[in-house]
Amino acid sequence: MPDASITTVPVPLGDRAYEIYVGRGLLQEAGQRIAALGARAAAIVTDEHVGPLYADILARSLQQHGLRTSVVTVPAGEATKCYAFLETVCDAVLEARIERGDLVVALGGGVVGDLAGFAAAVVRRGVRFVQVPTTLLSQVDSSVGGKTGINSRHGKNLVGAFHQPSLVLADTALLDTLPLREMRAGYAEVVKYGLIDDAAFFAWCEKNWQGVFAGGPERNEAVAQSCRAKAAVVVRDEREDGDRALLNLGHTFGHALERITHYNSARLVHGEGVAIGLCLAFRFSASLGLCPVADAERVEAHLSAAGLPTRLNQVAGGCGTVEDLLDAMAQDKKVKGGALTFILASGIGKSFIAPGISVDSVRAFLKDENSA
Amino acid sequence: MPDASITTVPVPLGDRAYEIYVGRGLLQEAGQRIAALGARAAAIVTDEHVGPLYADILARSLQQHGLRTSVVTVPAGEATKCYAFLETVCDAVLEARIERGDLVVALGGGVVGDLAGFAAAVVRRGVRFVQVPTTLLSQVDSSVGGKTGINSRHGKNLVGAFHQPSLVLADTALLDTLPLREMRAGYAEVVKYGLIDDAAFFAWCEKNWQGVFAGGPERNEAVAQSCRAKAAVVVRDEREDGDRALLNLGHTFGHALERITHYNSARLVHGEGVAIGLCLAFRFSASLGLCPVADAERVEAHLSAAGLPTRLNQVAGGCGTVEDLLDAMAQDKKVKGGALTFILASGIGKSFIAPGISVDSVRAFLKDENSA
Repeated sequence: MPDASITTVPVPLGDRAYEIYVGRGLLQEAGQRIAALGARAAAIVTDEHVGPLYADILARSLQQHGLRTSVVTVPAGEATKCYAFLETVCDAVLEARIERGDLVVALGGGVVGDLAGFAAAVVRRGVRFVQVPTTLLSQVDSSVGGKTGINSRHGKNLVGAFHQPSLVLADTALLDTLPLREMRAGYAEVVKYGLIDDAAFFAWCEKNWQGVFAGGPERNEAVAQSCRAKAAVVVRDEREDGDRALLNLGHTFGHALERITHYNSARLVHGEGVAIGLCLAFRFSASLGLCPVADAERVEAHLSAAGLPTRLNQVAGGCGTVEDLLDAMAQDKKVKGGALTFILASGIGKSFIAPGISVDSVRAFLKDENSA
Repeated sequence: MPDASITTVPVPLGDRAYEIYVGRGLLQEAGQRIAALGARAAAIVTDEHVGPLYADILARSLQQHGLRTSVVTVPAGEATKCYAFLETVCDAVLEARIERGDLVVALGGGVVGDLAGFAAAVVRRGVRFVQVPTTLLSQVDSSVGGKTGINSRHGKNLVGAFHQPSLVLADTALLDTLPLREMRAGYAEVVKYGLIDDAAFFAWCEKNWQGVFAGGPERNEAVAQSCRAKAAVVVRDEREDGDRALLNLGHTFGHALERITHYNSARLVHGEGVAIGLCLAFRFSASLGLCPVADAERVEAHLSAAGLPTRLNQVAGGCGTVEDLLDAMAQDKKVKGGALTFILASGIGKSFIAPGISVDSVRAFLKDENSA
C-alpha cells in the first residue's frame, strides 16, 4: 500500500511499538490498515459531533475487511472524561464481546481518545486500541504516547493508565471542517515542539503556518513532524520519569488558566491556555535572565500572528488574581515534594526542566504580567 | 531484621520484582518493612470488618517509621468491587496527596486487595502499592500476581489492570480469628497448588492440614509454599498469555457455580466453588479417560475431610439445570473464539490446559454429576 502522500512515523517502543500514519484519506481506507492487526472485532467509540460525520464511513471500511463492528457514542466535551462514561464505554465494549486480541477504536478528539484508550486499558485488564484522531490537537498530541485517562474532582487526568495504541491513523483531510478556533488551539501544540528542542522547526512554522491551516502538504508535514517529536520524547521516557516532562512546556501556566476558567471552553480551550503558557514560560525565562528577550518576543509574535492569545488579559472573563493563579498551579499534579517544577527555556528550541522554582519568583513575575 | 519464623518468597519479575513475607506478627512491625520502600505517605484502604481490628495497628506502625498515613474504609463484600467504590478509593487516595513514589496499602481480603490495587494502578496512572492480606484466600491467591480489578455487570473482574504490588506482608496470625468457613474456603486454593503441578505438596496437605487450620508452623509453610507456587507461574506468564491459565484449575466450574448462586456468599463462597470445581475437573478428566479414577477420589476425600463441599448437590439452594451451568460457563471470560477451555489433569500434580473442549462432552458429564 505505498502512497507517496501518506507519511509513516514509527514509535519504536519494543513490544509496544506501533506506527502513526499521517495523510489525507486515511479514514476511507482505515479498514485495510486496522484489519492488518489481526483482530476479529472492533468497538468504535466516538462522540455526538464526530460520530454522525464519520462513524459510518469507518464502520463500513472495517466491515469490508471482515471485522465485526459496533459503535458507542458519548457526549462531546471534557465532562465526558468521568467515571460514569468510563463505565458506559467499558460496558459497551464488553457488550460487543471484545476479547483479548480484539480492538477498541477511538474516533474523535482528545476526550474520546483518552476515555476510549483508558477503557481499552482496563477492559479484561487490557485490550488493544487504535486511535483515529479527528482534531489537530489530538493528531499532534493526545493520540501519541499512550497517556489515557479521565478527570477526577481533584483535577484533570488524575486517573488513568499508560496504554499505547497499536496504530494511529491521522487523516489530515478531517481537519478541513474543523472550526478555526480548534485549529488554532491545536496549532499551539505544533509550535510547542519547535520551542522544546527544534529551532529549525519553529522557523519552518513561522514561514509555513498558513499552509498548515489551509490544508496543503504543509499540514501533513506539520502533523508528521509533531508526531516524530513527541514519539522521540516518549521513546526516551515512556512513563514520564524524566525527559517526558519537557512536553509540559507552557502547560504549568496553561493548566492553571484552564482550572481558573473552570474548563469552560467558551472562555478558554486547552490550546489557548498552552499558547499563553508558552509565552509566559519564555517571558518568565527571560525575566530570570535565562533566555534572550528577543526569543520571547519572537514566540509571542508567531502565536499572535496565528490568531492565538498570548497574554493573561486575553482570557475571556479574566483570570483572577496572582494568588488565584499560584493556588491553581500548586494543585498541578507535577508537584513533587511540594516544590514547583517548571519547564523553562534558554532560547527557542532550548527548553529544560527546572525543579524547585520558588513561589516568590513566580509571584513577582505574575504581578508584572498581570499589570502589563 | 533476621527472623527465623518469617519466610521470604521472592517474585523475580525484573523491574517489577518484589518480596512476599510470610509469618506471624508481620502486621505489628509492618512500618519498618514498608518504610524501606522509600515512600513519604501511605493511604490505607480497608473494609468495615477488618478496619476496626487492624487499621490503627498498621497506621501507628507506619507513623512510627515516618510515613504520613490516612485510612479509607469501604463496605465488606464483593459488591464493593464496583465503579462507585473505585471512585471513592481513588478520591481518597488523591485527597491523601499520594504522589508517584508514595503508597496505597491494601489491608483486607481479596475484595480490598483487588479494589485498592486497581485504584493504585490508575491514580496518577500508577502509584505503588502494598498488600497486607488478612484472609487465607488472599494470602495464598489474590495478593500475589498483580491481578487487580472490579466487577462489571457483564461478569466478575472484567475491568482491571495488571499491577504488581511492591511488597506483600502475609501475617498468618491474623488468621487465628478468621471464621472457619473462610479458612476452609482459602484452603481450597492451597490444595489447588498441589493438584496443579506438585503431587508432593498435595500429599503434605493430606498429612498436615489440621496444623494449617490450627495455626502451627504448618500454616506458615502452607502459605509460603502456595505463594512460591503462584509466583513461579506468574513469573513464567505475567499477563496470562499461556501457562498462567493453569491457576484456573477448578475455576471454570467454580465461577459458573458462583454465577448461578448470584455471588451470594450465604449460599456459596469462592473457595467452596473452587473446591467443588476441583473435584469436577478431576472427575471430568477421569470420565474422559485422562486421569485415574483413584486420583479423583483422593482429591474428593481430602477436600471433604477438610470440611469443603465436593458435589453439585451440596450447593445451598441448588445449582440449577445442566443447561444453566453450561450457560454460566459460556459467559466465563476465558472463552477464546467460542470454544470452551478447561484445565484438566492426567493425575494429581499433572494439570494441563485443554482448549476446544466440546460443549457436548461437558453436558454429558454434568448430567451424570447432577443425577449422582
